[in-house]
Amino acid sequence: MRIALLGMGTVGGGVYELAAKKGIEVVRVLERVRRTENATTDIADIADDPRIEAVAEMLGGVEPAREYALRCIRAGKHFVTANKLLISRCGIELAREAQNAGVRLVFSAACGGGIPFLPSLVRARESDRIVRAGGILNGTTNYILDRMQREGVDFASALADAQALGYAERDPSGDIDGWDTARKVTLIAAVAFGALPSEDEMPVMGIGNIRTEDVQAFKRRNLVCRLIGETAKTEAGVTACVRPVLFRVSDAESAVLRNDNLCWYQGEQSGLFRLMGQGAGRYPTAANVLADVLSLNAGLPPMLEEGLKPAALTRAAAEPYYVRVPGYAAETLRTLLTGVSEAGEWRMGETVPMEPAEIQKIISALPGAFCAATVREGGKS
Amino acid sequence: MRIALLGMGTVGGGVYELAAKKGIEVVRVLERVRRTENATTDIADIADDPRIEAVAEMLGGVEPAREYALRCIRAGKHFVTANKLLISRCGIELAREAQNAGVRLVFSAACGGGIPFLPSLVRARESDRIVRAGGILNGTTNYILDRMQREGVDFASALADAQALGYAERDPSGDIDGWDTARKVTLIAAVAFGALPSEDEMPVMGIGNIRTEDVQAFKRRNLVCRLIGETAKTEAGVTACVRPVLFRVSDAESAVLRNDNLCWYQGEQSGLFRLMGQGAGRYPTAANVLADVLSLNAGLPPMLEEGLKPAALTRAAAEPYYVRVPGYAAETLRTLLTGVSEAGEWRMGETVPMEPAEIQKIISALPGAFCAATVREGGKS
Repeated sequence: MRIALLGMGTVGGGVYELAAKKGIEVVRVLERVRRTENATTDIADIADDPRIEAVAEMLGGVEPAREYALRCIRAGKHFVTANKLLISRCGIELAREAQNAGVRLVFSAACGGGIPFLPSLVRARESDRIVRAGGILNGTTNYILDRMQREGVDFASALADAQALGYAERDPSGDIDGWDTARKVTLIAAVAFGALPSEDEMPVMGIGNIRTEDVQAFKRRNLVCRLIGETAKTEAGVTACVRPVLFRVSDAESAVLRNDNLCWYQGEQSGLFRLMGQGAGRYPTAANVLADVLSLNAGLPPMLEEGLKPAALTRAAAEPYYVRVPGYAAETLRTLLTGVSEAGEWRMGETVPMEPAEIQKIISALPGAFCAATVREGGKS
Repeated sequence: MRIALLGMGTVGGGVYELAAKKGIEVVRVLERVRRTENATTDIADIADDPRIEAVAEMLGGVEPAREYALRCIRAGKHFVTANKLLISRCGIELAREAQNAGVRLVFSAACGGGIPFLPSLVRARESDRIVRAGGILNGTTNYILDRMQREGVDFASALADAQALGYAERDPSGDIDGWDTARKVTLIAAVAFGALPSEDEMPVMGIGNIRTEDVQAFKRRNLVCRLIGETAKTEAGVTACVRPVLFRVSDAESAVLRNDNLCWYQGEQSGLFRLMGQGAGRYPTAANVLADVLSLNAGLPPMLEEGLKPAALTRAAAEPYYVRVPGYAAETLRTLLTGVSEAGEWRMGETVPMEPAEIQKIISALPGAFCAATVREGGKS
């Protein structure tokens, strides 16, 4: 197998290192700073090279990744990417072009890093109907929530430590506010249901406003907060959302520590299936990219079944929420939300069940407010 | 891809049903009662048919499965099997013959049923060094332990229910006494380390003697008992054992309910990776067999790296055990075991650390005695 790489950063460098071991020849590498023998800065050297069967992209971001993807796909090359933003924003266009060109579009490493979650979903889709899928998809926020829960550190210190450890970006809002998770949810829906939700239409609630007193209130009730992204397919259509969820201490989600991830799907026949592990890391992610490359000629079912349609999101089921609003607003809001509280006053089941889009609308209008869905069935988030 | 099936039971029938959907043609089926068009009762019709590229075996048991495997492999056909006993007993011979014949020997469905654990191990082995692997590998015993833990039912009733539900055989000793788990451990060691332990040399302790008062003693300490099989590779060599282990309520193992399985491996680079889900079931297991078939021409790394050697087992690390011996023996044994107790008297950390082979020797000499390893690091069994 002869391939080209776009990008020689952490993951790209790992792919370059591991490729030979797997019998994959890296013919060209697109990189700004020349570090490899076959380096180029011109995408034409790759798109127009007939030796190259597949292109693996690890640039990140929408442009120029999208432009490069289109050129390579139209030139008849399979396209493997670790770039979740690219698929989340341009997946429909790229899938259509890939279908027209008779090539494959594969993106395992874009969701779960080293966890082969999307390939598992494909495998499950072949023998079962997938009902729901999702999980703890962002290691940075899990690291913060776990430090707050188990060590009682405050949000700012936990975030600072995550940044020092290289888990969080300097601008951590993509992680903290749930957007990284939302993008992964769009990829999961694409593979599970053949429908790509728009992250702009998805209710997305993050953990930016969680406080020590929230976590203490959870701990007193033997509950653990995790940031969950999930998507489901019902008769009414596809649902997708990102929000903090409270789990019992004995649930599997509560056993996901540090920056680990947990991905799950529920099949109609096979029940709930969960994968737990490190969601990032140079070599595991690079191995996922290379496994995708090897899958291209393997006669395995394609990652996207029959192209990709936009998903018109429908409303999810209502569920009770823990809600903490800044004190000054609490009084005026009691008519709207029962169970609204200063942390510590809240009781389980006190809140009115709300649909994610509905609660997000309310919460986003209240600076400093935090909410988390409650009352989950054991592990079946 | 053209294949033949050996056996048309639960899994074989599922494979037969799903094959066409995946572009796999079932050319012949070896079955005693003719249920398919291309049925035969003569293995020569399969071994000597040049159209057949691969044979999938779902007969179970050692003979005639072994004889059939040898004939097909020597005739140049890839061999896919869901038969753990066959690989556990004859894996070295079959791997050698497969290597000589230039064909592949693959057995994903023999460990974890529908959970693609062995393929994940292969994938991990390619990018990382596997240090340890194992898990909750038997659904029947987990069902019994979970019913005892969460509902307080006694062992006999939980076992009877497992039999009524079809989880346990009429003779349940293979599950209860840990042998099913032990066989799966040998398969895991084969894939992870290229070395096949003999189940006769492995310390194997089951749950046949667990009593309601043991479970109650665990519950009072927020501990949950699970039957764990595991194997590790240290500088001294390969270790492997099966024994009950006590976990904290907040550990992932404790969140494995009903007849679910949990499989994990620890990579030097990628840390602990866990898969949870239903370990059995017709279609998930059949899908695993078919995924193995599809993997044959996929250029994926082989399940067994370079043949298979016998594993000379070395002693595992000593760890503290909860031990309950029949009352009459307790007094005489106090010199041998500190912390030996009637259930309820035991305190964590009271026991003397012992190596699995050592404790097994003691326990097996005492009718009715039960033991479980204690003090596990969170989830890192």
